[in-house]
Amino acid sequence: MPAQTPRFSRRAGRIKISATKLMPMLAAEVGGCVSLGQGVPSFATPGFVADAVCDALRRDPAAGKYSLQPGLPALRRAVAGLFAREKGLTADPDSEILISVGAMEALLAAMLVLVDEGDEVIVPAPYYPSHVEQVLLSGGRPVFAPLRPDFSLDPGAVARAVTEKTRAVIITSPHNPTGAVFAEADLRAVAEIAVAHDLTVICDDTYDSLSYDAPATSLAMFPELRERMVAVGSFSKRFALTGWRVGYAFAPRPIMDQMLKVHDCAAICAPMPGQIAALAALTGPQDVFAGFAAALSARRDLACRRLDALSGHLSYVRPAGAFYIMARYRGDAPPMDMAVRLIREAHVITIPGDAFGPGGEQSLRLSFGADEAELTEAFDRLDRFFGK
Amino acid sequence: MPAQTPRFSRRAGRIKISATKLMPMLAAEVGGCVSLGQGVPSFATPGFVADAVCDALRRDPAAGKYSLQPGLPALRRAVAGLFAREKGLTADPDSEILISVGAMEALLAAMLVLVDEGDEVIVPAPYYPSHVEQVLLSGGRPVFAPLRPDFSLDPGAVARAVTEKTRAVIITSPHNPTGAVFAEADLRAVAEIAVAHDLTVICDDTYDSLSYDAPATSLAMFPELRERMVAVGSFSKRFALTGWRVGYAFAPRPIMDQMLKVHDCAAICAPMPGQIAALAALTGPQDVFAGFAAALSARRDLACRRLDALSGHLSYVRPAGAFYIMARYRGDAPPMDMAVRLIREAHVITIPGDAFGPGGEQSLRLSFGADEAELTEAFDRLDRFFGK
Repeated sequence: MPAQTPRFSRRAGRIKISATKLMPMLAAEVGGCVSLGQGVPSFATPGFVADAVCDALRRDPAAGKYSLQPGLPALRRAVAGLFAREKGLTADPDSEILISVGAMEALLAAMLVLVDEGDEVIVPAPYYPSHVEQVLLSGGRPVFAPLRPDFSLDPGAVARAVTEKTRAVIITSPHNPTGAVFAEADLRAVAEIAVAHDLTVICDDTYDSLSYDAPATSLAMFPELRERMVAVGSFSKRFALTGWRVGYAFAPRPIMDQMLKVHDCAAICAPMPGQIAALAALTGPQDVFAGFAAALSARRDLACRRLDALSGHLSYVRPAGAFYIMARYRGDAPPMDMAVRLIREAHVITIPGDAFGPGGEQSLRLSFGADEAELTEAFDRLDRFFGK
Repeated sequence: MPAQTPRFSRRAGRIKISATKLMPMLAAEVGGCVSLGQGVPSFATPGFVADAVCDALRRDPAAGKYSLQPGLPALRRAVAGLFAREKGLTADPDSEILISVGAMEALLAAMLVLVDEGDEVIVPAPYYPSHVEQVLLSGGRPVFAPLRPDFSLDPGAVARAVTEKTRAVIITSPHNPTGAVFAEADLRAVAEIAVAHDLTVICDDTYDSLSYDAPATSLAMFPELRERMVAVGSFSKRFALTGWRVGYAFAPRPIMDQMLKVHDCAAICAPMPGQIAALAALTGPQDVFAGFAAALSARRDLACRRLDALSGHLSYVRPAGAFYIMARYRGDAPPMDMAVRLIREAHVITIPGDAFGPGGEQSLRLSFGADEAELTEAFDRLDRFFGK
């Protein structure tokens, strides 16, 4: 029989590549672009973190080998300490903490063990696309709970989204793609809904250290959720370790025991150099990381100032955290057309807002993770594009 | 409602943690054990590879950030070169090569896009447990094709396993857990079966550089399979980079396009330090890696010599590749009981043979990846245990 295009699984047909990956590829073809697109802070791995990894590689043959499957014991203890310190959550590092390949792998493991074909997962929208892809990959159905127009979390929308098939709700605050930091009262109301309807809460705290006006509240802080929660964190944004691919998760033992089975046949273990880097970052001097947050806060001000000057063309809600702004343009051009025009005509990468689902119409996601020079250049180009 | 143990997905109920991970945990409780258990060669990351990573971390801020999603272009080109050189397979590095989080993540991505609920995947047995877990995780049913008693691949068994529901066949040679290197004629016969029944071939070449008596034939060498194949490789064993978590895959573009979607929401990208290490290893001087293979070949001889001296108690088939031996003991004790006794009474870690499925009964998998001193100590302890 001649080779044919193979038949693929239904789940493969349901998912797609996120636009955050597609736009830089398109830009690479065009050339000469500056980026307001990618979710990567500009900072390099701090010297003391790189030094710790290089020392380990020279000193310890184990530094290049598999770790225990759930992760380095010392790193799991440090992560348990972080949960206790910042969220008041007491976790057993031996049975309730997983070191994962970025936050992403932990989120996928959670989704694959919690969600069956036909189950529903509530996702506030606009949303982080990979959350939705992971629900779909697991055979589940994402049900969107629209954020309010100011991108605050709407517990009423979450309550209305609950059905008999609802299995979980996924919350990330500070929020990607809006930069919103959800209010404690709204989070508490969602926690009550989860308890009332026996839902599992997937709490993605990837941006928890990047809340500029006040510390962010996390669902991981609510003791009533402890036994029905997977709380995921990342070393990527806080410690500028995106490329090292190390994240972590708390889950109570019954859930963690299931997640470890997926982790075993998805990754074996998180990369050891990344685990060593994460341990150095988490237990070393924190001033350099506080500096990252301060720099991003200043870049937020820069980006908002530049957007204010473009108010005839772009409107936005001032973000309180993460490093994203959803900017709404005038007219009814589809966001992809607008983003492609910006790449071709302005040589600026942005992400089409509808890639983030309902609430992202006529919008572009702008990242202010880039350094001041690149941000300034990008906004200069936007000024010229909009003929300001 | 009080928190209850959550309901988990059916797929979670189907899979389990591999015994290769469980036995070291048990041994850690007992203490003082030497290991014939783990699938890790003893070698540390070579100095020139570690140096390349450390130089990059000092020189290039991008070294700690996300790479392009499919991997560093230079590494994809180097991998395409490796396929061309060693397998005669011409691959487009831009659209047909993926750099993955170890071979494992590429295998999982392949399985998730190829296998639907109820599909069957043929797996020669005994098998590598994660292959089976990945089939189960994808909702598929593994159908076992027994190896012959000498652990050679039996195309007749593969042919008999084919049904209307068969979607793929997964072949790994050199083979884990038997150390068998499959004969070209048997592989060719399996290739013919795949073509005749329109099956996709998943070719796991993790151990391809570790064939001690003659170069191993790979299904990736058969041009007639090119459009129906996912060929997966690893930097872990050949270059002693297990902990860096970097592998790679070739797939023709229609399959790769699907796999990249899973990769995007499972890992984002492979770890950058590992990609830099892999590029350095693949493009640097190869004598140190040839030395690894030579050392493992010598350890095979040592292990076989020691097993020959235990022939009253253990029988085995001399392995031609990888670094595993399935050793059959006398009596009908279950393999787990035997392995636990060896940990408790001999302080030697082995893996129960039935963890590798049919064909592993009354057997223990022994790894000869450890250095000569540890191997010698382990066999001394086995000698004492068996009262030799």
